[in-house]
Amino acid sequence: MPKNIPSPQQNQFANKAQAWSARFSEPVSDLVKRYTASVYFDQRMADFDIQGSLAHADMLTAIGIITADDNAAIKRGMAQIKDEIATGHFAWSIDLEDVHLNIEKRLVELIGDAGKRLHTGRSRNDQVATDIRLWVRHEIDLAIDLLHQLRRALATLALEHVGTILPGFTHLQVAQPVTFGHHLLAYAEMFGRDTERLRDCRKRVNRLPLGAAALAGTSYPIDRELVAKILDFDGVCHNSLDAVSDRDFAIEFCAAAALVMMHISRFSEELVLWMSPRVGFIDLADRFCTGSSIMPQKKNPDVPELARGKTGRVYGHLMALLTLMKGQPLAYNKDNQEDKEGLFDSADTLRDTLTIFVDLIGGIKVRADSMRAAALQGFATATDLADYLVKKGVPFRDAHETVARAVRVCEERGCDLPDLALDVLQGFHPSIAQDVYGVLTLEGSVAARDHIGGTAPNRVKIEAERILAETGKPD
Amino acid sequence: MPKNIPSPQQNQFANKAQAWSARFSEPVSDLVKRYTASVYFDQRMADFDIQGSLAHADMLTAIGIITADDNAAIKRGMAQIKDEIATGHFAWSIDLEDVHLNIEKRLVELIGDAGKRLHTGRSRNDQVATDIRLWVRHEIDLAIDLLHQLRRALATLALEHVGTILPGFTHLQVAQPVTFGHHLLAYAEMFGRDTERLRDCRKRVNRLPLGAAALAGTSYPIDRELVAKILDFDGVCHNSLDAVSDRDFAIEFCAAAALVMMHISRFSEELVLWMSPRVGFIDLADRFCTGSSIMPQKKNPDVPELARGKTGRVYGHLMALLTLMKGQPLAYNKDNQEDKEGLFDSADTLRDTLTIFVDLIGGIKVRADSMRAAALQGFATATDLADYLVKKGVPFRDAHETVARAVRVCEERGCDLPDLALDVLQGFHPSIAQDVYGVLTLEGSVAARDHIGGTAPNRVKIEAERILAETGKPD
Amino acid sequence: MPKNIPSPQQNQFANKAQAWSARFSEPVSDLVKRYTASVYFDQRMADFDIQGSLAHADMLTAIGIITADDNAAIKRGMAQIKDEIATGHFAWSIDLEDVHLNIEKRLVELIGDAGKRLHTGRSRNDQVATDIRLWVRHEIDLAIDLLHQLRRALATLALEHVGTILPGFTHLQVAQPVTFGHHLLAYAEMFGRDTERLRDCRKRVNRLPLGAAALAGTSYPIDRELVAKILDFDGVCHNSLDAVSDRDFAIEFCAAAALVMMHISRFSEELVLWMSPRVGFIDLADRFCTGSSIMPQKKNPDVPELARGKTGRVYGHLMALLTLMKGQPLAYNKDNQEDKEGLFDSADTLRDTLTIFVDLIGGIKVRADSMRAAALQGFATATDLADYLVKKGVPFRDAHETVARAVRVCEERGCDLPDLALDVLQGFHPSIAQDVYGVLTLEGSVAARDHIGGTAPNRVKIEAERILAETGKPD
Amino acid sequence: MPKNIPSPQQNQFANKAQAWSARFSEPVSDLVKRYTASVYFDQRMADFDIQGSLAHADMLTAIGIITADDNAAIKRGMAQIKDEIATGHFAWSIDLEDVHLNIEKRLVELIGDAGKRLHTGRSRNDQVATDIRLWVRHEIDLAIDLLHQLRRALATLALEHVGTILPGFTHLQVAQPVTFGHHLLAYAEMFGRDTERLRDCRKRVNRLPLGAAALAGTSYPIDRELVAKILDFDGVCHNSLDAVSDRDFAIEFCAAAALVMMHISRFSEELVLWMSPRVGFIDLADRFCTGSSIMPQKKNPDVPELARGKTGRVYGHLMALLTLMKGQPLAYNKDNQEDKEGLFDSADTLRDTLTIFVDLIGGIKVRADSMRAAALQGFATATDLADYLVKKGVPFRDAHETVARAVRVCEERGCDLPDLALDVLQGFHPSIAQDVYGVLTLEGSVAARDHIGGTAPNRVKIEAERILAETGKPD
Repeated sequence: MPKNIPSPQQNQFANKAQAWSARFSEPVSDLVKRYTASVYFDQRMADFDIQGSLAHADMLTAIGIITADDNAAIKRGMAQIKDEIATGHFAWSIDLEDVHLNIEKRLVELIGDAGKRLHTGRSRNDQVATDIRLWVRHEIDLAIDLLHQLRRALATLALEHVGTILPGFTHLQVAQPVTFGHHLLAYAEMFGRDTERLRDCRKRVNRLPLGAAALAGTSYPIDRELVAKILDFDGVCHNSLDAVSDRDFAIEFCAAAALVMMHISRFSEELVLWMSPRVGFIDLADRFCTGSSIMPQKKNPDVPELARGKTGRVYGHLMALLTLMKGQPLAYNKDNQEDKEGLFDSADTLRDTLTIFVDLIGGIKVRADSMRAAALQGFATATDLADYLVKKGVPFRDAHETVARAVRVCEERGCDLPDLALDVLQGFHPSIAQDVYGVLTLEGSVAARDHIGGTAPNRVKIEAERILAETGKPD
Repeated sequence: MPKNIPSPQQNQFANKAQAWSARFSEPVSDLVKRYTASVYFDQRMADFDIQGSLAHADMLTAIGIITADDNAAIKRGMAQIKDEIATGHFAWSIDLEDVHLNIEKRLVELIGDAGKRLHTGRSRNDQVATDIRLWVRHEIDLAIDLLHQLRRALATLALEHVGTILPGFTHLQVAQPVTFGHHLLAYAEMFGRDTERLRDCRKRVNRLPLGAAALAGTSYPIDRELVAKILDFDGVCHNSLDAVSDRDFAIEFCAAAALVMMHISRFSEELVLWMSPRVGFIDLADRFCTGSSIMPQKKNPDVPELARGKTGRVYGHLMALLTLMKGQPLAYNKDNQEDKEGLFDSADTLRDTLTIFVDLIGGIKVRADSMRAAALQGFATATDLADYLVKKGVPFRDAHETVARAVRVCEERGCDLPDLALDVLQGFHPSIAQDVYGVLTLEGSVAARDHIGGTAPNRVKIEAERILAETGKPD
Repeated sequence: MPKNIPSPQQNQFANKAQAWSARFSEPVSDLVKRYTASVYFDQRMADFDIQGSLAHADMLTAIGIITADDNAAIKRGMAQIKDEIATGHFAWSIDLEDVHLNIEKRLVELIGDAGKRLHTGRSRNDQVATDIRLWVRHEIDLAIDLLHQLRRALATLALEHVGTILPGFTHLQVAQPVTFGHHLLAYAEMFGRDTERLRDCRKRVNRLPLGAAALAGTSYPIDRELVAKILDFDGVCHNSLDAVSDRDFAIEFCAAAALVMMHISRFSEELVLWMSPRVGFIDLADRFCTGSSIMPQKKNPDVPELARGKTGRVYGHLMALLTLMKGQPLAYNKDNQEDKEGLFDSADTLRDTLTIFVDLIGGIKVRADSMRAAALQGFATATDLADYLVKKGVPFRDAHETVARAVRVCEERGCDLPDLALDVLQGFHPSIAQDVYGVLTLEGSVAARDHIGGTAPNRVKIEAERILAETGKPD
Repeated sequence: MPKNIPSPQQNQFANKAQAWSARFSEPVSDLVKRYTASVYFDQRMADFDIQGSLAHADMLTAIGIITADDNAAIKRGMAQIKDEIATGHFAWSIDLEDVHLNIEKRLVELIGDAGKRLHTGRSRNDQVATDIRLWVRHEIDLAIDLLHQLRRALATLALEHVGTILPGFTHLQVAQPVTFGHHLLAYAEMFGRDTERLRDCRKRVNRLPLGAAALAGTSYPIDRELVAKILDFDGVCHNSLDAVSDRDFAIEFCAAAALVMMHISRFSEELVLWMSPRVGFIDLADRFCTGSSIMPQKKNPDVPELARGKTGRVYGHLMALLTLMKGQPLAYNKDNQEDKEGLFDSADTLRDTLTIFVDLIGGIKVRADSMRAAALQGFATATDLADYLVKKGVPFRDAHETVARAVRVCEERGCDLPDLALDVLQGFHPSIAQDVYGVLTLEGSVAARDHIGGTAPNRVKIEAERILAETGKPD
């Protein structure tokens, strides 16, 4: 095989359809062109397309398919193209269909024959699969970093509120008192698992499809492991048909993004509720809210509401991609072109939402008084009284009945359990003593739940510090 | 009440956030602004926003809230704005958040105080609900027209192929012969139901929400039925809270669009299969296909593949909108802003896809020989032989066994049933006579299914002509 | 053709697989049998399967394919089978795969040859399509009736609360006062549109597929319109391939069910919120709630929470069915068997949920004092003050600034707008007079929104009575 | 605290609602009971519920809350209950709502007071979360084992077909020849990633929620790490609110299951296509197919069709669960009860489908002749000719044009490229020599793609052996 493969004499990109025109009797109509073109959205992958091409060129040089001079020219041309794109001077053409052909054509314009040799031993099928993986990998890294920041923000606020008490709800009914720090850390746990999921997904994203060519591999003696090394992939895809056709890694990313958004949506639901005047547990910083020109008294929690709404679109994209792939035979089909927009939009939504939430958490103003007032409203320490009685030797069932009677009396009097005098309490059960008040206070209740995962202030402190340690140095 | 309500002295749009700035201590950040702005996508509704405003202005004039001069000024200003938008000279601003404020600000710039009076008795909540309904109504009308054209194209092609025979498949196995016209009309039926669904949906879309104001109605003596009449709505929404908050009409449209795409996807699945060289039933016109620069022999059915893929995105948008609305308390929440992009994209996808398919059907080249060859391959008239025997008085079960034995012999000989000589056939059952060959031919088989909905050529002709009559005059 | 077609000599059901065993070398394994059998769930359609068979038999008799005696035997046998099923004495067999073969086999056992003639001119493909349509039609009728009852319950409660005032929320922030009757009727409107949708869907469900046979129609001279008339179908399916293969009518039903559940979920979200102690607008009857054995003070709104949760499953079934049909070529494929379980579960969920909600609404205890207190908390009449000023001739923008200043003063003083003395108010703007207090009261605010769709008590009364009239006689 | 906590004097389960009846004025209606009960489906978790209870009892014994005698009694009672359930003698009661109360009541019946002490320091909220995790963990282990078997089956068949050639399709058009072994291994790769995903998911499933109690932890001095160790959990959940309320681990499992089914569906699509008479690449063993009683010639690939259809339901369950969790505030809400049925059905569908497919692959009969004939039909080695020319020094573009001209000639002559005589080929380009025929054969083409992931037989052998090694010893 010659060291340097001669390149085409004419520019195959003058009219892209020329490539197969000999066998085609009519051109593609404008609507069909628009319907089938992907350059509108896949130009977002341009940097990664170039990065992949440079690695491919290095490999072709290493195995002697192109010369070092060609490679230098490719590097020079690509640098200029990258700059043109970054500065908005690149002339994207729908006639060239996609990001790959647009860049390749420009490369040939800039450096001539060397550019024409770049496509040796690859195909757009494995090229686009590589671009998407590089793009998703990049987005995963961004998302993991943002999740770290988000968990730090939650842990930092939690540390300030290890002892701030609000009602823990089940069924939106007051159940037991919990600390606000503990409540915040529940979300830090969720986002922690989301981080793990993205890390796990990254392993599957980070395998090189390049070298699969159109579908079967190539007859050139390519060195795929070298390309993988240059591009920082963990390994290569072991089957060419699979490499060009499957998109499960992208769907896995969308599923992980959907779970992050699910957690964001749950948190948003609470933020909106907490901001509502009947609850009033927090105030969000003004920069995340809007007012109303017609109702001057309004302060609307726009950001959490919108985040909640955007959860729907990420779910929808997941469903779209699952549907897309469902019935496709091997190998590449044009259906696959539809893999990108939903994927891109999911990543964008995730990134923007996480970025805003990092800032938003820092802007939460806690109304500890409202929280405390709410915790005092619903007999939140009734369970503690029952536990107290059981520990004193009262049968659980009797203890429960005793508490139910005490609650009824409180309801009649319009007071809470700790407001009852000792003799009144003893009227319910003689084993009740002065130490009951330690149990009936909100502070006593939360402090008693002192085990891993419990709401006790010292446990919250330990967990918050663990999360800060996990995600970097404490601020 | 004065005839002419004085307008604000200052321009409330100089900085939109000024509207509530007195109560807000910090401006919205750029990211939040971008995250929450809708002008990127809702500017598509500009024409309908203007149309709604003009009807509102006419009504305000009719009830004496604004003067005829104001109304004239509003009409003049809006005409200019419409022109500016159409010609790309309108300066959209993200600071003004959405299409409504952008247009209103420009109106005030152009005509001054009269523009400031336009918003009397309405709110952006009912305004946007009106815009969306006008937009969806327009898209439904376009889609219905395209579905008509599509059914005409199918019926026209069906008329040419009332007697062209291909195998009818179940489980992708040859079952019985059918006519290609009949096969095409199956899709015409599906698209007919899709048309009905869109028409039914239109009834619910076409009700006026304007007048609901922010959520509770307005204290101005508005005449909602007049506005409905001007805007060609069938009626008014009877509850203000419902009018500003629900989006079920948009979801119903998305569900109807999903079903159209489902039918398109099924048809596409067949087109791709029919184009595959092992099947070879049809050829698509070159303008809907692409070739391959690496594989010169390829002709890829890109359009049906992509249409199949785009079904996923329409499904996804439906799911996104259902998710979006699921947990929202009354009345308007910011979540609702997320109702538009998926809706818009569903309508765009539907419109483009139907437009292309109308043309694509006209470009189908039928390979009747391949169809016929395939129909002859799988003993497609075995059922007819069984029916023949039953009609001769042979018990169904015996008839079935007889046919099974005949099929086995054919398999051994590598021939089809009509290739067997009469004496061989009579060896299977004595009641078989010369007239059996009429039954065993493909033509005899399809002709025998001569009832409403059957595959007989004269039935196909009747149905095709019915569809052409339903959808307009025959070409 | 003989009047009476002889029937098989042997029982083809002795072993169902015998039907094709001559060509098959091994039996289906038990797991495969279980995997592919549908009798577990399709036995629910037994009554409709019998109903369809009886109509088919009547038609076969009318056209002379079977005798009147055969028909009488079939009727007698089916009556017994129906009874056996109703009383739990029918022996369902997985070996017979589905509801159709189970019933047919039993019929042959009971009446012999006449039973074997029943299947003439039909196939399981058109039979199951008929059964599903009859089943869905029945469920639609049930759902429409339940929606009527639900709207009556809402309208009845609304009539009791035309003047009960609660805060109208946007963004869960207090916006303007509305009447509770008005709020309830917003849902009555939604369920009204849901009713329309089901009625529209019914038109498409109610077309007869029977006669399509396996896929191409039949060579027997069947009278499909007679069968349609007997079974009360509005018409017949006009294409056999479409008739046996499409399930869009079932998906349309699922989409309509999803929208009902979406509305139920929104209502449930509010019920749960209103039950929360910080809000306390209502109490649900105990029969819809559970307590906690560990927290004696709890009363959990289980039913609305679960209804909210069940919305997810109905959404999921819709997505499952859309996915199922997406890539299927014509005509029948085994994939289609998966159309039933999700459909059945959607209908069950819808029916149970609506039934419970009719009762639940009757059990809502309204806490008008809490509602009123909440409406007084958030400057809900600020918009009314602005409108008052505008009507007095104050420019809208100035009016808005004036109100914003007044609100700030109220916030400082911890009072609401009507608590300010007239001279204080006049300090904000001299045009304010004694009549302002009529505007600033909650009653004045709601009464002023007196147009179609507005929240004024007399409007609510009109709408509630309209709904009661639409859905039957008032109780 | 006493060593042995006294137990209730009465049976709290006599009527479960008694537990809170003191505060409730009416019983739950039968419909509500049925609507809210979960025992219909959660009884499937009985073994895991017992397993969790036994570990909890061991821990309570270790920390001195219950005596060794109590623990022994609990073990004895639970053993009997497990047996009763296994043998169908357990009397499930809907009045007892769920699996937990049913078992607990029976335990108290069997062993008295000791049974009443078991629930100390836990709640049904953390108990059900534990049961689900144990259940999902078990299903993951089963699925991973089945995926191993499936990959082994694919690799084993691939080893038999390292040199069997079929056309590699893109767009269902013949692209390049590939080996059937290579094609099969594409799926082995997909199922390999599915295995990884389930393993990763298992890490998040395998954390202990028990100890979170109702939502805040418990005041008893529990040892959660001991329980985790006994139950073989990798660790404990670090936040009680999160532990009882989130279900992301179950959704992650459903997403992983959806991807497995997506791959199964793609494979099934091909199996159905390959079985179609126009393609005829394979035959499936009869035990996975059904015939037709009406069409004796049919052999329908029911199993792959149904598997394709069942993909929809798994997608739907994923969507249902995502929807379910989306808007839930902390901590436990009744919505969560809806997490189970979809999860269970997803796991069942996955298990059954994988089990059948392991067997199905063993029953694939390859029709190598049909495959080869198809590969010879579409100029599959055109790319190889182009590569040959490029390697000879012909510019890529010229090479491509040359091949296109040769293909046209072949089309006219109705032959394939290797059928052209050398002088004819040289007429297209003089650089073509005798060695071209090595390149133009199917064998030459596949052998040339000899790099990691390429379709060359020796590469397929290497990969198949790697997979066999990964999944156990070769058969």
